[in-house]
Amino acid sequence: MTDFPKELLTGYGLYKERIYRQFEEEYQNLAIYGQEPEVMVISCCDSRVTPEGIFHAQPGELFVVRNVANLVPPFIQGGGTHGTSAALEYAVTGLKVKHLVVLGHCKCGGVQAFRESNGKLSKTGQFVGPWIKMLEPAAITLACTPVDKNEDPQLALEYAGIRQSLKNLMTFPFIEKLVTQGNLDIHGAWFDIGSGSLRVMNKETELFEDAQDLRARLKEQEAED
Amino acid sequence: MTDFPKELLTGYGLYKERIYRQFEEEYQNLAIYGQEPEVMVISCCDSRVTPEGIFHAQPGELFVVRNVANLVPPFIQGGGTHGTSAALEYAVTGLKVKHLVVLGHCKCGGVQAFRESNGKLSKTGQFVGPWIKMLEPAAITLACTPVDKNEDPQLALEYAGIRQSLKNLMTFPFIEKLVTQGNLDIHGAWFDIGSGSLRVMNKETELFEDAQDLRARLKEQEAED
Amino acid sequence: MTDFPKELLTGYGLYKERIYRQFEEEYQNLAIYGQEPEVMVISCCDSRVTPEGIFHAQPGELFVVRNVANLVPPFIQGGGTHGTSAALEYAVTGLKVKHLVVLGHCKCGGVQAFRESNGKLSKTGQFVGPWIKMLEPAAITLACTPVDKNEDPQLALEYAGIRQSLKNLMTFPFIEKLVTQGNLDIHGAWFDIGSGSLRVMNKETELFEDAQDLRARLKEQEAED
Amino acid sequence: MTDFPKELLTGYGLYKERIYRQFEEEYQNLAIYGQEPEVMVISCCDSRVTPEGIFHAQPGELFVVRNVANLVPPFIQGGGTHGTSAALEYAVTGLKVKHLVVLGHCKCGGVQAFRESNGKLSKTGQFVGPWIKMLEPAAITLACTPVDKNEDPQLALEYAGIRQSLKNLMTFPFIEKLVTQGNLDIHGAWFDIGSGSLRVMNKETELFEDAQDLRARLKEQEAED
Repeated sequence: MTDFPKELLTGYGLYKERIYRQFEEEYQNLAIYGQEPEVMVISCCDSRVTPEGIFHAQPGELFVVRNVANLVPPFIQGGGTHGTSAALEYAVTGLKVKHLVVLGHCKCGGVQAFRESNGKLSKTGQFVGPWIKMLEPAAITLACTPVDKNEDPQLALEYAGIRQSLKNLMTFPFIEKLVTQGNLDIHGAWFDIGSGSLRVMNKETELFEDAQDLRARLKEQEAED
Repeated sequence: MTDFPKELLTGYGLYKERIYRQFEEEYQNLAIYGQEPEVMVISCCDSRVTPEGIFHAQPGELFVVRNVANLVPPFIQGGGTHGTSAALEYAVTGLKVKHLVVLGHCKCGGVQAFRESNGKLSKTGQFVGPWIKMLEPAAITLACTPVDKNEDPQLALEYAGIRQSLKNLMTFPFIEKLVTQGNLDIHGAWFDIGSGSLRVMNKETELFEDAQDLRARLKEQEAED
Repeated sequence: MTDFPKELLTGYGLYKERIYRQFEEEYQNLAIYGQEPEVMVISCCDSRVTPEGIFHAQPGELFVVRNVANLVPPFIQGGGTHGTSAALEYAVTGLKVKHLVVLGHCKCGGVQAFRESNGKLSKTGQFVGPWIKMLEPAAITLACTPVDKNEDPQLALEYAGIRQSLKNLMTFPFIEKLVTQGNLDIHGAWFDIGSGSLRVMNKETELFEDAQDLRARLKEQEAED
Repeated sequence: MTDFPKELLTGYGLYKERIYRQFEEEYQNLAIYGQEPEVMVISCCDSRVTPEGIFHAQPGELFVVRNVANLVPPFIQGGGTHGTSAALEYAVTGLKVKHLVVLGHCKCGGVQAFRESNGKLSKTGQFVGPWIKMLEPAAITLACTPVDKNEDPQLALEYAGIRQSLKNLMTFPFIEKLVTQGNLDIHGAWFDIGSGSLRVMNKETELFEDAQDLRARLKEQEAED
């Protein structure tokens, strides 16, 4: 017999019998016509952060990279097998997505491991250590020019990591060009499973604002117009 | 005003007001007690392949890496900033997941780009090319010893990629050891959004079998026992 | 005629006719018997921070290294021509000083240059950049585990630099051994020319305390004993 | 209680209550307006050689590097973390000092260690050895073309070290350029704590002349003019 996790088989059964049946036509079209997502999300592997769940998104809507601590590496010429860069290139130049969203989150284990290492990343695993070393520029920037000194240090570094990834996105020539032309937008967001809060980075202040407040303001404005 | 995609804000509003409200207590516990997923999924960035959707999984259940073409690189000593290896290390040695599932899918753009390159990956993008180059051993194995010659070549390479990733998983000492001890299982699966089919790789035959059939057989067996 | 700065010649005249005349015997003894300082100070080149002035110290009392931003590099096996390491080795193993004092200060230009670089040290001068790069671990530690979140970021990084230098001192085997044996003490201090304040790092809390308060408490205790 | 050296706390008390009180306003201005020293001194760590004491200089007047044996390394492209080069760059290109003074001294322990090693610097400490190895070109020049054969060999090498450091200063493009333009002067000087003598190097003869004599001659000339 198979040793495939029984919960997955059961869960799949529910999907097939309820969800697929409901959306069969849309899904068949997705298979026939291919994907045309407008949004790419760079998110964490954390099991509590499910981009499709948080954004109530349907199949076909979000192109999603998930890696430890939702990190975007800086552009490196001849940068080899960098999976996140490959995904960015595929989404931006191939699928021509219109938005890149770096989605960080509360109590991120990658950020926590970085903080606990206190700069001694060699003790943090042979792969995890070099990977989260990408947080170093974020930590340095945070120490040099803190945006909000009252933040909890874990939260402050989660935010700083998102800001650094946004900076790194702009180091890719094919991204920088489209952003400058106004054909691509990049965004930072942060999610807390516990309170259900989503915060969106204000590009001018670099502070994170409650998404529900943003929605309310958008609605008011629409009512006014 | 914010230029954060309005659909995402609207989607999030639905999440917050419907889903979060319903599961508030479970989500707060996930924040307080941390994640303890039993399953890690290595999946594709493709917007049509959402592991939580396909397995009807709740937040906290699946630790998910998503990269182009759901590839697992081979273990490389001093392997630098390899995000997928970092995620594997974090999940296996840190979170102590019990299952690793490589989840491929139908009409994979990464596999298609590999096929279209016809071996000239340098034309496939400076990041996508080196990344999907990891499919080369899969293609070579497929050409040498096809498991099922009647398969469509795109599907055959999707399967071969999954098989190769499973092989590569076993090159990680910390994975190989736990698998040998019986404390970790690795699985291959393949999903088709159009038909809603999920297929699971039979480890003996290396053929992919319909998951609904597996479920049915499991139920029969349980009824017998 | 000489172009030696006239102010220096005038200043030297004052020294020779007033100071030297007054202390002639002590100075001759220092020449004959050699130096036996008990304290080594690692201080900044800043013209406003004069260790002998701040500590009202006489010739022969303080062995002084001064470099940009009062930095101690970490111990590096075969570390080449590192001047500060050479001075430490000379003072600790040769002169057998009893105290090492890392003396930071307010508005340090090296710390400021590091902050303004925001991680792009390549723009900060071909020698200054690599030198103040030694502040990176301090900045990272500050971002990971801030000691006092209410500090001004410049001050916070000045303190963090001192703490990092104290850590680095302990990486030298010949220092670590003597400190462990109780034969050498290391201290952090910080000076502000504007207010005339000296603050001394409390080794347990790692916070900086006013030196005048420390003196007062020491006197009280002596009166009690 | 603190283990901060009691003599330093006492000395600081004297500074704060006497010196700071007297110069409070000047010092506050130094904090507010920043340092603008016209002179940089490259001096030895030796506790008997205090540049501010010898030149009767006030805070804000001398930018001071102190290393073992007052050595200036030669300019090295991509010279890494060379503290003295960093201090030179900061003083010359940042603070725009007008004078660089290499200040050697009598009975220099670094020069003595070099002489005692007899060329076997590997026995002179893992950091001191490589550091004072910078005296080698000075020793070779001295052996080949002695300026004054009657000098005591220790004194002769102290002088030669100063001459070599002056030569090395001119290898820095940003120094050489300003010196050639007449916007920066470099000087050699030598101090003897025992006799209180200061000697200044005559740039033409490369001999060292008594500073008090220089002063007397300067005064005479001023009286004549």
